[in-house]
Amino acid sequence: MRVLGVDPGLTRCGLGVVDGLPGRGLRMVAAGVARSEAGLDHDQRLLVIADQIETWLERHAPDAVAVEQVFAQQNVRTVTGTAQVAGVAMLAAARRRIPVAVHTPSEVKAAVTGSGRAGKAQVQTMVARLLGLPSRPTPADAADALALAICHLWRPAGALGAPQRAPGSLTAAQQAWAAAEQAARRRPARRPA
Amino acid sequence: MRVLGVDPGLTRCGLGVVDGLPGRGLRMVAAGVARSEAGLDHDQRLLVIADQIETWLERHAPDAVAVEQVFAQQNVRTVTGTAQVAGVAMLAAARRRIPVAVHTPSEVKAAVTGSGRAGKAQVQTMVARLLGLPSRPTPADAADALALAICHLWRPAGALGAPQRAPGSLTAAQQAWAAAEQAARRRPARRPA
Repeated sequence: MRVLGVDPGLTRCGLGVVDGLPGRGLRMVAAGVARSEAGLDHDQRLLVIADQIETWLERHAPDAVAVEQVFAQQNVRTVTGTAQVAGVAMLAAARRRIPVAVHTPSEVKAAVTGSGRAGKAQVQTMVARLLGLPSRPTPADAADALALAICHLWRPAGALGAPQRAPGSLTAAQQAWAAAEQAARRRPARRPA
Repeated sequence: MRVLGVDPGLTRCGLGVVDGLPGRGLRMVAAGVARSEAGLDHDQRLLVIADQIETWLERHAPDAVAVEQVFAQQNVRTVTGTAQVAGVAMLAAARRRIPVAVHTPSEVKAAVTGSGRAGKAQVQTMVARLLGLPSRPTPADAADALALAICHLWRPAGALGAPQRAPGSLTAAQQAWAAAEQAARRRPARRPA
């Protein structure tokens, strides 16, 4: 199974393609960043990013697209553009009938490090280790996109869209993932003051 | 000149098409709402809304698309979906090389009522009056989309993308619009606590 991870952003949108199966070995297919110039009009920036995402979908033909959840509480200056790029990526996948999943940052961290509170560097180190890369993938947005793809491939049995597996056969990483997912669902939505 | 106004929303996205010229008479061409079922997956909802916006662009061939500005401080439960629909609308216009403008709610209210602090009912009453309709357009999202289109048609000379006019020839509504726009630009971005 091949997954395209999308770490949405208007200036830099991380993209990472990983082949794998739940609990099995992983292989990096591609990693990179879609960019748009800050000087362009907003609609043109969305178009530039959308075109690059379309190119990745064409070239790599993923079986699923995993997008990072955007929370309204994130950086208020950029959250609208970030959400729009996430939407544009979901739309591009939906138009091609490719299933879309959304994962929270906590789920992604838990999937690759075993802890939903891991730092960025720890996530990047584990992405390199899991994919057998000689060093941390750069830029960071590409590494985050690869982590998203891994998170989706390793999501526990019973998660939305996950292949069926025998119960009780979760790896440690999958158990951490499930715990982080549960925690994220229990957490009440915070509201700005 | 023909403008499609888009009041973005994932459950109901207001759409309104108005013909007119700055400071001249207006004519309503169409008004309605694009909807998506709350039970669908998020990417499918974006696709359903995007397809309806595409249909409106095809059918009415507007010269410009005016989208309401989405602020991160809005309803935290729905702001991500709202921003994504705004992004999808901008992308659809950009793909057709139709110019896109974004207007704040204050600008829209000022354009049709003379006050950037007008209530919803007042805006709807004025939309009906300006377009010569027998009653307020319903649903409210369609009325808001018509107000956006009017706002764009009546934007003052010198505003981004506005046709050139002799200085000092602003109508009262256009002066209120300019004042609201200035106020919106001066206002510092609020941050969530």
